[in-house]
Amino acid sequence: MCREGLHWPAIKIINVKSYQERQGVGIVVHIDETRDASQSLSAILDLVAEDMGGVNRIILDKAVSDVELIPQLAHHLIDSGGKRLRPMLTIAAAKLSGYTGDGHVRLAAAVEFMHTATLLHDDVVDASDYRRGKKAARLLWGNQASVLVGDFLLGQAFRMMVDVGSLSALKILSNAAAVIAEGEVMQLAASKNTATTEDEYLAIINAKTAALFSAAAEVGAAINGRPAEEQAALKSYGKTLGIAFQLVDDALDYSGDSARLGKSVGDDFREGKITLPVILSYRRGGEDEREFWKRTLTDGEVRGGDLEQALQLMRKHKAIEATLERARYYGSIARDALAIFRDSQPKHAMLDVVDFCINRAH
Amino acid sequence: MCREGLHWPAIKIINVKSYQERQGVGIVVHIDETRDASQSLSAILDLVAEDMGGVNRIILDKAVSDVELIPQLAHHLIDSGGKRLRPMLTIAAAKLSGYTGDGHVRLAAAVEFMHTATLLHDDVVDASDYRRGKKAARLLWGNQASVLVGDFLLGQAFRMMVDVGSLSALKILSNAAAVIAEGEVMQLAASKNTATTEDEYLAIINAKTAALFSAAAEVGAAINGRPAEEQAALKSYGKTLGIAFQLVDDALDYSGDSARLGKSVGDDFREGKITLPVILSYRRGGEDEREFWKRTLTDGEVRGGDLEQALQLMRKHKAIEATLERARYYGSIARDALAIFRDSQPKHAMLDVVDFCINRAH
Repeated sequence: MCREGLHWPAIKIINVKSYQERQGVGIVVHIDETRDASQSLSAILDLVAEDMGGVNRIILDKAVSDVELIPQLAHHLIDSGGKRLRPMLTIAAAKLSGYTGDGHVRLAAAVEFMHTATLLHDDVVDASDYRRGKKAARLLWGNQASVLVGDFLLGQAFRMMVDVGSLSALKILSNAAAVIAEGEVMQLAASKNTATTEDEYLAIINAKTAALFSAAAEVGAAINGRPAEEQAALKSYGKTLGIAFQLVDDALDYSGDSARLGKSVGDDFREGKITLPVILSYRRGGEDEREFWKRTLTDGEVRGGDLEQALQLMRKHKAIEATLERARYYGSIARDALAIFRDSQPKHAMLDVVDFCINRAH
Repeated sequence: MCREGLHWPAIKIINVKSYQERQGVGIVVHIDETRDASQSLSAILDLVAEDMGGVNRIILDKAVSDVELIPQLAHHLIDSGGKRLRPMLTIAAAKLSGYTGDGHVRLAAAVEFMHTATLLHDDVVDASDYRRGKKAARLLWGNQASVLVGDFLLGQAFRMMVDVGSLSALKILSNAAAVIAEGEVMQLAASKNTATTEDEYLAIINAKTAALFSAAAEVGAAINGRPAEEQAALKSYGKTLGIAFQLVDDALDYSGDSARLGKSVGDDFREGKITLPVILSYRRGGEDEREFWKRTLTDGEVRGGDLEQALQLMRKHKAIEATLERARYYGSIARDALAIFRDSQPKHAMLDVVDFCINRAH
């Protein structure tokens, strides 16, 4: 359930289908689309370019410490890219709300630090070997340093939010911090359990992923003291976008390609993660198939050819298509959430982000 | 460098000297004292009793989650006691400042949650087996759950602070969160390194321990909008008290008794921790003694009789006495910091806490 795909600022979408056919792994899914995913990010990239320059400067500035290990480890992750989608949402939402101050830039940097802290702790919890195509920090500096530098970045995030001085933004983001951790614990408790239901899975991704997308968008309106209706709309937009994003991420784990994911196809399978493609295949399959999932995911007895078998079962039950179908459903809610706003450049850019999150499945 | 000694609310000091003589371990240090340590906490216990009831109710209330693992793990630590010295400082400082609202109770609960989160992460980082005389949570629920529940408690702490709505208190506590993590990273970087200087050690304990004591006391004045001079006095009191507390803790690791510490004499030795008793023995000893410290702490080659040898070297160089001497020095600064306040019950209770922190070394 890695959360990252492309890199910032160089967005590059490779020809996935031919890569997959070349490699012979992953499931190729065909969906109608009007344009490719890289185009759908261009509007928001233009919109936020200047402010994101400020966000990036703050990120570099706040990852500094006299304790050498902190900037070393933090930069390993910060420099390795990541789309910085969450802080872009904060900037775009602030612009949508007509905000003219500079607090949104600092809040956006805080949002990215919260995300980075979560990634560091996630890698320790998942015992991950790779993150954004680079060796996970925990392998280079140890689990201990990853836990503590994550704590430091979270502390810095709160410091930045407090500096902005908006109690409503603080409320939204501190709430998200607790909910994200709650979601991670839920995920840990559901780990390797093939009996996890789709509902439980949705509750997990709602907390561990959608909560930060939601908070990132909502604070953009909150610092400008916009009416409750607008704040609620951005909250809903962020939440449903985040769910769609995670659904696609979980589908990509079985259908994407390694170069693009920064990790390998089947990582979730090898870690015994119970994501929607597995949940659907497990429920739609027969008794012998359920035994297969229990052996590989619950008992962790993975043999040669098991990943291919898993992919074959997912194809048989159209589990990836169904996962993406759900992603499109949440994407459509996200689009409708923005309907109350009058047409504007930020609104169109934010609508395009929904397309991007859905279409990156290609 | 365990941070806990006695338990709340049942404060019990056993006859340490006779215990040590019976067990034949640890270094017995004689210091003049006018009364025993349990008495020096009675004034603050009386002062804060009612408000601490409120703090304890909030702690129970906020450790709740639908995710079962969270209250299970949180309660393991919460129910196991601990003095709750830090939240008591917040309550006492608020009373000293003439505060009449109820925000101090929620801030005190947030302070305790910050502390609990740190303990959970500490145990993972140190690979500790015991905490407050009970099996460490990480051994019962795994390192992963300890990391994530720690994150959850930190998130809840921030939620509570935000609810109180004092930006100055938020600034002080978010600052402390980042500094504590920084101190933990410093400690990790210095781990097993016998070349660590006393200065570096002081910087570590200043950040990892004194920062929260300091913030806990300072917010008591901050929520009441007291003059900068009073806030600075409480900040200084907390900081120097925290340093004294940690110095005594580190001395106790080589001189206390297991029943009282909730851990074993020599835990720091076995973990390769570089605390002041080691730093002083290393520096005051000859070449062969330095080789002994390098072998046992840096290389981790500990043989039977090595702890006894370490204790013998500490006795020879009066390293425990010197550590406690420093603790008394910081304790005297803490006392002087309160001198600007007029005589009052809270002031006397807070002065007594200094005596407690120093005298618990007996």
